[in-house]
Amino acid sequence: MKRGFGSDNHAGVHPQIFASLVAANTEHAPAYGTDEWTDKATEEFRKHFGSSAQVFFVFNGTAANVTSLRALSKPYQAVFCADVSHINVDECGAPEYLAGCKLIPLTTVEGKLSVAELEKAYIRRGDQHYSQGQVLSLTQPTELGTTYSFAELQALIAWAKSKKMFVHIDGARFTNAVTYLKKSFKELTADLGVDVLSFGGTKNGLMMGEAVIFFNKDLAYDFKYIRKQSAQLPSKTRFISCQFQAFLQDNLWQKISQHSLQMAHYLYESVKDIPGVQVRGIPQSNAVFAIIPSEWVKKLRENYFFYVWDESTFECRWMTSWDTQREDIDGFTAALKELAQ
Amino acid sequence: MKRGFGSDNHAGVHPQIFASLVAANTEHAPAYGTDEWTDKATEEFRKHFGSSAQVFFVFNGTAANVTSLRALSKPYQAVFCADVSHINVDECGAPEYLAGCKLIPLTTVEGKLSVAELEKAYIRRGDQHYSQGQVLSLTQPTELGTTYSFAELQALIAWAKSKKMFVHIDGARFTNAVTYLKKSFKELTADLGVDVLSFGGTKNGLMMGEAVIFFNKDLAYDFKYIRKQSAQLPSKTRFISCQFQAFLQDNLWQKISQHSLQMAHYLYESVKDIPGVQVRGIPQSNAVFAIIPSEWVKKLRENYFFYVWDESTFECRWMTSWDTQREDIDGFTAALKELAQ
Amino acid sequence: MKRGFGSDNHAGVHPQIFASLVAANTEHAPAYGTDEWTDKATEEFRKHFGSSAQVFFVFNGTAANVTSLRALSKPYQAVFCADVSHINVDECGAPEYLAGCKLIPLTTVEGKLSVAELEKAYIRRGDQHYSQGQVLSLTQPTELGTTYSFAELQALIAWAKSKKMFVHIDGARFTNAVTYLKKSFKELTADLGVDVLSFGGTKNGLMMGEAVIFFNKDLAYDFKYIRKQSAQLPSKTRFISCQFQAFLQDNLWQKISQHSLQMAHYLYESVKDIPGVQVRGIPQSNAVFAIIPSEWVKKLRENYFFYVWDESTFECRWMTSWDTQREDIDGFTAALKELAQ
Amino acid sequence: MKRGFGSDNHAGVHPQIFASLVAANTEHAPAYGTDEWTDKATEEFRKHFGSSAQVFFVFNGTAANVTSLRALSKPYQAVFCADVSHINVDECGAPEYLAGCKLIPLTTVEGKLSVAELEKAYIRRGDQHYSQGQVLSLTQPTELGTTYSFAELQALIAWAKSKKMFVHIDGARFTNAVTYLKKSFKELTADLGVDVLSFGGTKNGLMMGEAVIFFNKDLAYDFKYIRKQSAQLPSKTRFISCQFQAFLQDNLWQKISQHSLQMAHYLYESVKDIPGVQVRGIPQSNAVFAIIPSEWVKKLRENYFFYVWDESTFECRWMTSWDTQREDIDGFTAALKELAQ
Repeated sequence: MKRGFGSDNHAGVHPQIFASLVAANTEHAPAYGTDEWTDKATEEFRKHFGSSAQVFFVFNGTAANVTSLRALSKPYQAVFCADVSHINVDECGAPEYLAGCKLIPLTTVEGKLSVAELEKAYIRRGDQHYSQGQVLSLTQPTELGTTYSFAELQALIAWAKSKKMFVHIDGARFTNAVTYLKKSFKELTADLGVDVLSFGGTKNGLMMGEAVIFFNKDLAYDFKYIRKQSAQLPSKTRFISCQFQAFLQDNLWQKISQHSLQMAHYLYESVKDIPGVQVRGIPQSNAVFAIIPSEWVKKLRENYFFYVWDESTFECRWMTSWDTQREDIDGFTAALKELAQ
Repeated sequence: MKRGFGSDNHAGVHPQIFASLVAANTEHAPAYGTDEWTDKATEEFRKHFGSSAQVFFVFNGTAANVTSLRALSKPYQAVFCADVSHINVDECGAPEYLAGCKLIPLTTVEGKLSVAELEKAYIRRGDQHYSQGQVLSLTQPTELGTTYSFAELQALIAWAKSKKMFVHIDGARFTNAVTYLKKSFKELTADLGVDVLSFGGTKNGLMMGEAVIFFNKDLAYDFKYIRKQSAQLPSKTRFISCQFQAFLQDNLWQKISQHSLQMAHYLYESVKDIPGVQVRGIPQSNAVFAIIPSEWVKKLRENYFFYVWDESTFECRWMTSWDTQREDIDGFTAALKELAQ
Repeated sequence: MKRGFGSDNHAGVHPQIFASLVAANTEHAPAYGTDEWTDKATEEFRKHFGSSAQVFFVFNGTAANVTSLRALSKPYQAVFCADVSHINVDECGAPEYLAGCKLIPLTTVEGKLSVAELEKAYIRRGDQHYSQGQVLSLTQPTELGTTYSFAELQALIAWAKSKKMFVHIDGARFTNAVTYLKKSFKELTADLGVDVLSFGGTKNGLMMGEAVIFFNKDLAYDFKYIRKQSAQLPSKTRFISCQFQAFLQDNLWQKISQHSLQMAHYLYESVKDIPGVQVRGIPQSNAVFAIIPSEWVKKLRENYFFYVWDESTFECRWMTSWDTQREDIDGFTAALKELAQ
Repeated sequence: MKRGFGSDNHAGVHPQIFASLVAANTEHAPAYGTDEWTDKATEEFRKHFGSSAQVFFVFNGTAANVTSLRALSKPYQAVFCADVSHINVDECGAPEYLAGCKLIPLTTVEGKLSVAELEKAYIRRGDQHYSQGQVLSLTQPTELGTTYSFAELQALIAWAKSKKMFVHIDGARFTNAVTYLKKSFKELTADLGVDVLSFGGTKNGLMMGEAVIFFNKDLAYDFKYIRKQSAQLPSKTRFISCQFQAFLQDNLWQKISQHSLQMAHYLYESVKDIPGVQVRGIPQSNAVFAIIPSEWVKKLRENYFFYVWDESTFECRWMTSWDTQREDIDGFTAALKELAQ
C-alpha cells in the first residue's frame, strides 16, 4: 500500500515495540495474564496513573469501550455520548449488543460534549419507563481531532460526579491528548474522578492491544469475568502486555505522540494557505480536517491514501502517525499546490 | 517460567511465524482485513479447504467459537455439545451471553459425543416451549486428547445433516487431528458437510489469532457485521493473517503438529510403565492424561508445570507443543521414576 | 382516582369486552393459544387484514413492539424511528436489550418522520462498522396525537421498500388512525407493504393484551419461539383473544375510536378559544395538546388528572378514551375558564 | 374442550377472583402499579410474608422466573437448577436470553435437588473461565409433583447461604406446597433466607398474573427498571393485582389449594390399585404421575385430556385444579378400569 494519511492504524509497529515482542518470545510463560510481562506493564501503568489503578488488557478498541461500559452500567441504564463518538457510529451496535444499555447521543460542537447538552439530557430521573443516564463517555481526543481542555474536562466530569454518574474515557489516542495538554496521565484521569479509561495502543505504534484501566477499584472487582465472557481474555497475554511495557518505558509514548502531533502541525502549516483548501483549525491531536474541491480527491489519492470524512461537504481527514515523515507531507503539499493552480 | 506441560498456549511463537510478523511490519497497510497478507492467507486456506471457503480472522478461540455459534443459531435455538467442551465449561458463559442461545451439554465417553446421545437429546421438535437443537458443535481433537475417527465424524455429521442441523467444529488444535487422521483439511470438514470451523492458531505456534472458516457460503453473508459487533475485527489485521499464511505455507502446520504428536507419544511411551502412573490410552493428539499419586504433584511441579485435570482422581494433563524437547520429557520421566521408587 | 385526561390506559374495560371475558370463563380450554377463542379472534383479524395475516397475542405494547423488532432485525442492524417514539423514549431500553439492535432516532415534525430525514440517515451501506438500517418503525397515530396521512404513509413505506427495509407500525392506538383516515385496516397496512403491526388493545378498551400481526408470512415462521423466549406467551390465552374477538366484532372498535375522537374534538373546540390556552392543532387522534400557564396545572389537577408533556413549555397532554363523557369535558372547560379570568 | 387433567392452566378463573375483576372495573385508575388495588394486594402479601416483602406484578410465570434471575445474577454467573426444572426445559431459553446467565442443570431424584449434587457442582470458584454459580433456583412444588420437605428446604437454603449464593423459588404452584407442608408462607421463604419467590397465580385460579416477591430488600431496589425493560410492566395493573388481593383474602388461596390436593389424593386412591396402572407415589401436590399401557392413552384421551410426560415409558401426568370435580375423577377411573379388564 502507498503511504498516506488514512489512519494511524495503517502504520506498522514501532521498532522499539517490535523489539519488546522479540524479547518476550522466550521459553514458556503462564497464560491468561499471570506472566511477568503483564506484571511489569501493570507496574508501568501504575507509575503513571497511581498505585490503585487496575489494568486489564484486551484486544482492540471496541472491546475496551464495550467492556468498560458493561462494567459501568446496567442494561436499563443509558450512556451519554457524543453524536460523532466511535461507540455511537463506528462499532456496529456493539455497545447496545454487548453491554445491553442504551446510548443517548448528544449534539456536539467540534466533536465536544458540553454541560449544557448534558443538562438537557438529564431528565426523567427515577422514571421506570426511561433509560436512566448512568455513564458519561468522553472521547479524548475527540473523533474530530479536537482535545477537551483541562477546564472543559473538569467541568464535564464534575457535572457527572454531581449526578452520581460514572465517567468513561475512550482514549484510543489518549497519549496524544496528554502530550497536547502537557498534563500527567493521572491529572487527566484519576485526579479528575474518571472511573475507567480505554487506553489505546493499536493507533499509537503497537501491533495490537488496548488497556482498560479502572481508577475506581470497586468497579473492577468482577471485570475479569466480564472480560473473559466478552471473549477478550488473551491466552498469550505476554505479547500484548510487553508492548505496553515498552510503550510506557523511557517515555516512548511521549516521543510517539509528540512526533504525531508535530507532523499534524507541520501538515496544517503546509496546507492552510493553499487556495481551495479550507482547514478546520489548528490541530489539537494527530488529525487535520480540511474541505477541498471534490474533484481533487481522486487525484490526490493516487499517491496518498486518506478518507473523505463528510461526503456532503468533501471534508477530508488527514491523520499522521508515529511513522509519518516530513517527506510524506512535503509530497502531499506539493500535490495539493499543483491541483490548486 | 519453568518449562513444562501445562498448555500449548504456554509456548511462545514459532520462529517461522515470528519471521512472518517481521516481514509484515513494513510501511502502511489498509486496516480491517483489506490488506495483501489477509488476501494471501485466505488463498492458502482455500488451497486446503476448497475455493469456496470463507475466511474471517478473529483474536482468540472463545471468539471463534462464539461468533460461529452466533452465525449458525438464533437465540431460541440450542447447541448440542459435549459436557466437557470448552464452550460449555471454559468460556464463562460467553456462548449464552454473546449468541443468546442455549447449550445442551451431552454425556460423552472419552470426550466424544455419540449419535445415541444426540438421538436422546433430539426431542420436542416444533414445541415452542423448548429450545430447538439447531447446531451440533464437535471439538476435534477433544478436550480429553482423543480424536474422532473419520467414521465417527461421518456418522455424527450425517446425523446432524439428516436433521437439518448445522455443524460447527471447535478446532483449537485442528491441525493435530488432521495429522493424526492422515486426511486432508477438506476431507475432514467441507467434504463431510461441516458448516463452520474454528481453526486454531494460538495453541499451534502463533502469537495470537484464530480463523473462522465457513464452508456454507450462505451462512457467511453477514458474518462481517457479526464479527465487528462482537468486537473481533482486528484493525491491523495483517499481523494476524500473516501468521496464518506462514503456518499454512510449506506445510509448517504439519511439521508443528507432527512434532507435538510425536512428543506426546514419546511422553506416553516414557511414562506408561512407571509404577504408580496410570495412563489413559495411546495419545491421539498432543496430550497425555495420567492418574498419579496425589503427593507427587507438588514435587513434580517444582520443575515442570502442568495442570491437575480432575481434582478428585488426581488425573493430570500433560500437554506437548511445538517447542517441547526430548530433554524436557526425559527430565520429567526421570523425576517420575524417582518418585516411583 | 378522580376521572381525567391522563391516559387512555387509566380507563377500565369496555362493558362489551368485559362480557367476552365472562363468556370465555367456562370449563377447560387448551393453553398457549390452541383454544377456540384464539381461532375466532384470528378469524376476525383476517376479515379485516386479509387471509394471510398471521396473528400472535402478547401481553402489552412494549412486548408487541420489541418482539416485532426482534423478528424483523438482526442485532447488528438498526431501526429508524421517531425521536419521540415510544420505543425510543418510553420503554426503558427494551428494544436494545431484547432485540439487541440499535435504534437510530430521527428528527420529527409534529411527531412525524419524513422521507427527507430517512434519506439523511440511510448511509454507510455495507460498512461493517455501522449498524445497517433494516427497519422503519412508524407510530400511527403518533405520540403527539397526529396521524400520518395516507399519502405520507405511502411515501414513507415506498421509500423503505425501495431500500429493501422492513416496515413496522407501532399501533397502540391504531384503530383511532383507521377511523380518522376513513380507510380499511388492510388499506393502511398490508396493501401498503407493512410487514408487522403492533395492534393495540389495552388503550382502546381492553383489560390487557396486544396483537402482533405479520403481513409478510415468511417473517412469522419462527415467531412462536420468539414470543415464548421473550416471556410473552400467555398460558390462558383465551382471556386475551376473546377480548379482541369482541373488539373486532360488530364494529365495536369503530364505535370506541369514533367516540374517543369525537370527545377529543369536543375538548379541542371547548378550550381552543380560552385565553391563556394555546392549543396545538385540530386533533387527529384522541389527544389534545395545549400549552397553559404553569400555575394552572396544580389547580386543574385537583379535579382532573393529566400529564405535563413538556416540563419546559408546560405543554400538557389531554387524552380522551372510550369512557370519556361530555360532562368530564364540560367540567374541565369550566375549570379552565375560571382560571382564565 | 372436554374437561380433563391436562394442566391447571386449562381451568378457567375462580368465581371469587372473577368477582374481583368485576369490582375493579370502575372508573379511572392510575396506570403502572400506582393504583389502590395494587396497594391493597401488596398489603395482603405483607400480611403473609412480612412487612418488608417487596411485591411486583408481572404477566406470566416465565417472566417471574426470568426477571427474578436477572435481579439475582450477572451474566457471567450461573444458576444451579434441577434438570427437569421449568426454567431449564420449558422456557425456550428465556433465562439465558433475558438474564444472560448460564443455567447449570443438576441431576435430581423425584424432581428434587440435593446438597450432594450442589456440592459437586460448586467448583472452580474464582476461575475466570468458569461461570460462577450465584443462584440456587428451587421449584416448590417440583415439576414432578413432589414437595421439598421443610428439612430439605432448610438444608438446601442453608448450603446456598453458606456459599453466599442467592436463593430463588419458582413457586408457580407455591400455595399447594404451603398447604401440603402446613407451614406459613413466611416460614417457607423469608424465614429460611429465600431471596426471591415467583409466586404463581395463573395455575391457581387466576385469569393471569404472577407476583415476584423479594425478601431481600436490597435486591429489589432497581427491579422496577428490570421489569419495565423486560416488557413486564402491566399498564392497567389493577386487573392483575385485584386478583391477587382476592386470592389472598379470606384464605381463598388455601381453599383452592386444599381442593386441588384433595382431588389429587382422591385420584391417586382411585387408580392406584387398577391393574396396569403404575402410580409413582402418594401425591405431594396437585399431580398424579402414573405409567399406563401405551395403547390406553388414545382411548382415555377421547374423554379426558392429559399429557404423556415421558414418551419412552408412557408415564402420564394427571393434574387436578380448583375446578376438578369428583365426577371427573370417577369417570376417569371408570374408563381406566374398563381398559384394565
